[in-house]
Amino acid sequence: MRLIRPAPLTAASFASFGDVLDATGDFREINAGWCHRHHNRATLDFGPEGRAGLSIFKARPRALPYEFDLIERHPDGSQAFIPMSEQPFLVIVAENPAAKPVAFLTNGQQGINFHRWTWHGVLTPLAEPGLFAVVDRIGATPNLEEFRFTEPWTVIAP
Amino acid sequence: MRLIRPAPLTAASFASFGDVLDATGDFREINAGWCHRHHNRATLDFGPEGRAGLSIFKARPRALPYEFDLIERHPDGSQAFIPMSEQPFLVIVAENPAAKPVAFLTNGQQGINFHRWTWHGVLTPLAEPGLFAVVDRIGATPNLEEFRFTEPWTVIAP
Repeated sequence: MRLIRPAPLTAASFASFGDVLDATGDFREINAGWCHRHHNRATLDFGPEGRAGLSIFKARPRALPYEFDLIERHPDGSQAFIPMSEQPFLVIVAENPAAKPVAFLTNGQQGINFHRWTWHGVLTPLAEPGLFAVVDRIGATPNLEEFRFTEPWTVIAP
Repeated sequence: MRLIRPAPLTAASFASFGDVLDATGDFREINAGWCHRHHNRATLDFGPEGRAGLSIFKARPRALPYEFDLIERHPDGSQAFIPMSEQPFLVIVAENPAAKPVAFLTNGQQGINFHRWTWHGVLTPLAEPGLFAVVDRIGATPNLEEFRFTEPWTVIAP
């Protein structure tokens, strides 16, 4: 059995895969001080022929241990996942299909943005409601590559 | 005292102001049936010189009754608010500064997208964490008009 233990999601450990979207770091005070704006936190990239779209994903929760054999990437655009609940979710990424995948667990106050070309697992909430807003590419191309491992990986409890 | 009673947020009642972002209506099955994609739910419009940005807002919660005397609009772009919690929040809009503002209360599973030019109140969560992802315009212009009422409005409990 090929096991992966998830680590807490941090901006530093996730940097080569994408952006962590949270209320840490620099901000601007707006609305007479009632609100902090953490400005422009994601590297959005939808290619020369694409544009940004906002979709809602409703996914059925998974449980740990979680077995998977598929990763995918989007050659034409970045993809951001914003949880519409405070439930932590699982984030699976890989430097490339030959490398061991890496798993992260969010802290309930974090979204993520996969950079264009980043290999990643499918959306894996671990609890209801599994509701996410997704900012990704609207365009004419399929914008999807998939890779299936010959032997599955299993994400175990942290 | 000028009072406003909030109504439940629905796509029909909000249509002239913007889009309701939720997991209702048509969807595509993705991820081998584990996920429903409610595709491209927002009219994003960032003008000829603008592009999409993704920011994180952290706002201090308000309480009802809530008094306000300011509305604003963004002449150069739409603005989407995606709650990162299941806490309902207050949405204030106005057809124009001379009209009585309208208030809506979300159901905890809804984001919203203000269309370009829509007059609206500032972000008003009613409970912690007051954490939102915001998709709005990145560009060189100020992209802000404000209007201050001579007499304030008060949003009361629904």
